[in-house]
Amino acid sequence: MSFSTRITVRFADADPAGLVYYAEIFHYCHVAMEEFFAAHCGTAYEVLIGGERLGFPTVNVHTEFLAPLVYGDEALIEVYASDVGESSVTFEYRVYRASDLTLCVRSTQVHAAMNLDTHCAVPIPEKYRQAFASSA
Amino acid sequence: MSFSTRITVRFADADPAGLVYYAEIFHYCHVAMEEFFAAHCGTAYEVLIGGERLGFPTVNVHTEFLAPLVYGDEALIEVYASDVGESSVTFEYRVYRASDLTLCVRSTQVHAAMNLDTHCAVPIPEKYRQAFASSA
Amino acid sequence: MSFSTRITVRFADADPAGLVYYAEIFHYCHVAMEEFFAAHCGTAYEVLIGGERLGFPTVNVHTEFLAPLVYGDEALIEVYASDVGESSVTFEYRVYRASDLTLCVRSTQVHAAMNLDTHCAVPIPEKYRQAFASSA
Amino acid sequence: MSFSTRITVRFADADPAGLVYYAEIFHYCHVAMEEFFAAHCGTAYEVLIGGERLGFPTVNVHTEFLAPLVYGDEALIEVYASDVGESSVTFEYRVYRASDLTLCVRSTQVHAAMNLDTHCAVPIPEKYRQAFASSA
Repeated sequence: MSFSTRITVRFADADPAGLVYYAEIFHYCHVAMEEFFAAHCGTAYEVLIGGERLGFPTVNVHTEFLAPLVYGDEALIEVYASDVGESSVTFEYRVYRASDLTLCVRSTQVHAAMNLDTHCAVPIPEKYRQAFASSA
Repeated sequence: MSFSTRITVRFADADPAGLVYYAEIFHYCHVAMEEFFAAHCGTAYEVLIGGERLGFPTVNVHTEFLAPLVYGDEALIEVYASDVGESSVTFEYRVYRASDLTLCVRSTQVHAAMNLDTHCAVPIPEKYRQAFASSA
Repeated sequence: MSFSTRITVRFADADPAGLVYYAEIFHYCHVAMEEFFAAHCGTAYEVLIGGERLGFPTVNVHTEFLAPLVYGDEALIEVYASDVGESSVTFEYRVYRASDLTLCVRSTQVHAAMNLDTHCAVPIPEKYRQAFASSA
Repeated sequence: MSFSTRITVRFADADPAGLVYYAEIFHYCHVAMEEFFAAHCGTAYEVLIGGERLGFPTVNVHTEFLAPLVYGDEALIEVYASDVGESSVTFEYRVYRASDLTLCVRSTQVHAAMNLDTHCAVPIPEKYRQAFASSA
């Protein structure tokens, strides 16, 4: 069972066409990733970046938008790692409309492990590597 | 010569790590697309969606983040159509740091032509088809 | 006991100075108001605006920022009506850092009752008037 | 003649009710302040916060929303200092619809001069004090 979290679509998230703006969906994925770190990896993302000076910026995105989310919906977002490299990890995000489990968005994102002071790639620490590997 | 526009990175666009948040980059691409419609296609995007009830929501995204933008940067964003189908168009976005023309982001986005009342796909009107075709 | 809700500060909400951006705080207040409608007034805000075509746009704001919120904080936001007029209501928002109940923001906002089709002020329906009156 | 700058309302800035979201208006004011620093005070805001470690967070806001901005509008925002204290400055923001100069928003914001490392109030450096004083 992979990790999932719920996000309520807010008034401000929908555009004049009534649909959740596509950039907002990427924000939802990041929020889900933050929750994933806290709940599954044992370290809140703010501690990771503030204390360990380790960040996981997104370097590659492949995303399909299959069905719209609208204001009033609740999103259910699933997160798991599909590949763990030396200094990068591929997270899979699945965004569902929670009410009927319609798959709305499928996003594959490669995140680099980066030292936030040097802005250089670093090896993924073992504890995160294991947490990622056990998330699928 | 393809269309390009400039966007100043704002204080709010950068995250605690000092870099422009990745979802913000997708917003920049959309802003560039809005400018592209007004400048190259002869119709402001608000007229398109308000008057013609035609929208071009993004249905597929492939994006590579090659170099970060930081607060203080100006982005130069190039937009052109690489493929025009019956009811969808593929826009290419290239985001450069304006000061030294470093390529920061390469994004390929498929946009569907959608009637905003029925939320159904529609054929791309001829005038836009021609404008897209002449943008590369 | 007035209504309150919790909002987790997200990575994207903090600016390069490390603090939650002031415009984001106004977004938090609106999110809290949306929760207030659903939990205390018996109508989700999306039903209010979508079904009843009734909105409560903010027309007047007085806000004091007393202490910063930072990434990693959780906000506790209290909402209640301090005044209910014919076609406007004054909501009081108190934003606390949840961990130690430090009062971070005190915001008084007058919201007009507006018909979203005519964009004209309308009397506040009785059921909302009563819900507002009982919120303090 | 006080300083002013123009901001184009973007697709994402408007909410499902079709109006620019109120929190977005506060973002517009901050963008105008950033432009004001660069154009009128001789220092880009990113240099101020990055180099001098001096920021001007908003500590008090009084805002009236008089008329809505909608998608397709251009905003004209005027910025000037109405009061300059030892370690705080009061900026006046006037947001007009550029097409017909309708006054849409009147916002008075007190900004504290803050050292971004200590998070303590500091006296406003003389060069900024003079720039603020000459802005009305």
